Amino acid sequence: MNLTPSPFATPFPKLPEVKGVRAATGSRGFYAKRGVTRDDVFLFAFDEGTTCAGVYTISRTASADVLWCRQALQTGGGVARALVANSGNSNAFTGPKGQEKNEATLKAMTETLGVAKEHCYLAATGVIGEPLADPNYVGAFVPDLAAKLGPPDWEAATRAFMTTDTFAKGAGMSMDIDGHDVNFAGIVKGSGMIAPNMATMLAYIFTDAAIAHDVLQELLEDITNETFNAITVDGDTSTSDTLMVFATGQSGMDPITSKDDPRLDAVAMALHSVCLELAQLVVKDGEGAQKFVTIQIDGAVSPMSAKIIACEIANSPLIKTAMAAGDANWGRIVMAVGKSLEPIDATKLAIWFDDVQVAVNGARKPDYSEKAASAVFAQPEFTIRVDVGAGEHSATVWTCDLTHGYVDINGAYRT
Amino acid sequence: MNLTPSPFATPFPKLPEVKGVRAATGSRGFYAKRGVTRDDVFLFAFDEGTTCAGVYTISRTASADVLWCRQALQTGGGVARALVANSGNSNAFTGPKGQEKNEATLKAMTETLGVAKEHCYLAATGVIGEPLADPNYVGAFVPDLAAKLGPPDWEAATRAFMTTDTFAKGAGMSMDIDGHDVNFAGIVKGSGMIAPNMATMLAYIFTDAAIAHDVLQELLEDITNETFNAITVDGDTSTSDTLMVFATGQSGMDPITSKDDPRLDAVAMALHSVCLELAQLVVKDGEGAQKFVTIQIDGAVSPMSAKIIACEIANSPLIKTAMAAGDANWGRIVMAVGKSLEPIDATKLAIWFDDVQVAVNGARKPDYSEKAASAVFAQPEFTIRVDVGAGEHSATVWTCDLTHGYVDINGAYRT
Repeated sequence: MNLTPSPFATPFPKLPEVKGVRAATGSRGFYAKRGVTRDDVFLFAFDEGTTCAGVYTISRTASADVLWCRQALQTGGGVARALVANSGNSNAFTGPKGQEKNEATLKAMTETLGVAKEHCYLAATGVIGEPLADPNYVGAFVPDLAAKLGPPDWEAATRAFMTTDTFAKGAGMSMDIDGHDVNFAGIVKGSGMIAPNMATMLAYIFTDAAIAHDVLQELLEDITNETFNAITVDGDTSTSDTLMVFATGQSGMDPITSKDDPRLDAVAMALHSVCLELAQLVVKDGEGAQKFVTIQIDGAVSPMSAKIIACEIANSPLIKTAMAAGDANWGRIVMAVGKSLEPIDATKLAIWFDDVQVAVNGARKPDYSEKAASAVFAQPEFTIRVDVGAGEHSATVWTCDLTHGYVDINGAYRT
Repeated sequence: MNLTPSPFATPFPKLPEVKGVRAATGSRGFYAKRGVTRDDVFLFAFDEGTTCAGVYTISRTASADVLWCRQALQTGGGVARALVANSGNSNAFTGPKGQEKNEATLKAMTETLGVAKEHCYLAATGVIGEPLADPNYVGAFVPDLAAKLGPPDWEAATRAFMTTDTFAKGAGMSMDIDGHDVNFAGIVKGSGMIAPNMATMLAYIFTDAAIAHDVLQELLEDITNETFNAITVDGDTSTSDTLMVFATGQSGMDPITSKDDPRLDAVAMALHSVCLELAQLVVKDGEGAQKFVTIQIDGAVSPMSAKIIACEIANSPLIKTAMAAGDANWGRIVMAVGKSLEPIDATKLAIWFDDVQVAVNGARKPDYSEKAASAVFAQPEFTIRVDVGAGEHSATVWTCDLTHGYVDINGAYRT
């Protein structure tokens, strides 16, 4: 299947080197049967002393890889030494064979790299439910990759785990902390089956900051709520969603071991910024996306209520098709707000498209201009803001439109 | 906009005459500005002694008409004498102007027909949020319609309240109760913005059975749960959804005044049958629908849990686009089951497409045949059955696919 690049596609950014991280990518042949030659596996290796944090899909049918990562994060004490991910097969709903593939891969990682099993992380993305004929298919490839380990080629790694993505997505930054050069590099893949509750598919952020596992874990969970869990393409939740941060500590800074450490603010800012950029890039590469839309809800009774209303708007097929057509059909916004069943004051409801107010006090604005509203919807990026008149709380969610491209891509994905 | 007829379009059925019901339809001009001449308003009048029951959208932004009907049902003692509905304007989110339109219409109904205001019912369907310039626009037309009242032309009435429907939808039956000929005629409009929680848009069933309001109301609520609240096109919930039954009692049968009356079974069977047929017709005329799919969930911990899982499958854009493409992508079914967050046993999960089993014990069936699975998905109608392995309860939901037609229709609706 040939995918038309997203109109928001950008060249892969220059990401900083992260001390203590080595990587290698290679082609195992997952795509060969489709006549495509491309890299489809990567291996990352981390220096001793690397901590990590992770959040994963809440799906009841989570992939074998996700189940392993969750277990390793608990039993391994938040230490990470290696990561292997493949595209082309998700290893979800593969029964005992899925676990066999993991065991074989983990065995290869521990033997090749001389690290503990519970410090090794796994991921797989692609078609659900097709077990690998050879459980060691990935494991047998690990020594080849280990022999090539070196400073990461971030773009190559990103391309190795892409599926229906139309461009390689990364974000990063560097900052000074106590005279130490601290670097962050993040990569993400994901385009469809994207909804709040881990919308990432797979995202990894690498840093040479030094930070204890428990502090990093709490920080990541907070940040996820406002970034990766605030995006939606189609409201569908993957069985494989994974977001992990690896902190090698090789920048030389003294470790952050408490959430009261004043240096945590800088690290939090950097992580938030990288997560938000990666999350928004996923929406911008949403399957068939032609529009990038910010949904802002004000006047809700709680942040959670605001987010629920925002997601009803962001996931409504009627609103998403109207976005695609550039049709400023604000009545459907009213429908979605009502459908949320959240507390609102319908007599105070107000709606804006960018700076154009279209509704006030529960009715169309008297001087409503269809032309002005349509001009906003004609743009590639715009904001829908709704004040639901019931309280003081807000939330922001990012989404894309529902186009013929989405229908095409998802009818043809397996062919 | 020209709509391609649904592949499931059928000629309007011959519905029985219902004693005690008169009707008239006419063209008020709601569609004239789009250059279309068609009927867009109907008036129904019911003989003295007519009881009624109703269920309405649970939206927090319900239309002014729905708010009135709910109020009338409470204050009017479940008596009905007249019903007016228009297409072309939904009178939802129209603020005080929406109430003014209702007051003017109700005034015309009471004065023209000599009936009490709280025995009059209203409905409106069409674009949300465009207030009528003249609040009496519908009311002024009531005397014209009243002058034409006569035995219902069921198809003409149905065509008068259609919007994006591609064919006129009705169902009915007659039966003998205690030697009396008892008749049921039902009509429905609805095609998009269809989801459980009153998926009808507008549906009316007329009968000359004699049945007390409270018995009829309880019966209708039970039946709705298994019919109109078990269908979904796009997961969106309308601000105007309305289902009402009017029972004139003119068949001559003694009134049913208790739910223990043994004759209630026959009435319940007839109402259930008519509601189910109308509900399924709405899905078959779902916007852009090319496939009609039954989702059956077994092995759930409760009927509600089964229905939640069924709806996750029925509303998933990834599954609906796969249906459209005839792609038997059963991995996405696994995804939707997991996303429901309902209790399941993933190691016992089993999936069938019609009689073809594709998954067993939480993995692909060893002798899985892509060819056999695809052959099922190639049909215009089929059943997806999932046993989630956690309990003894079941639910069935009906839905359609997500096609290019849906994207086209909903980008162009207002133009």
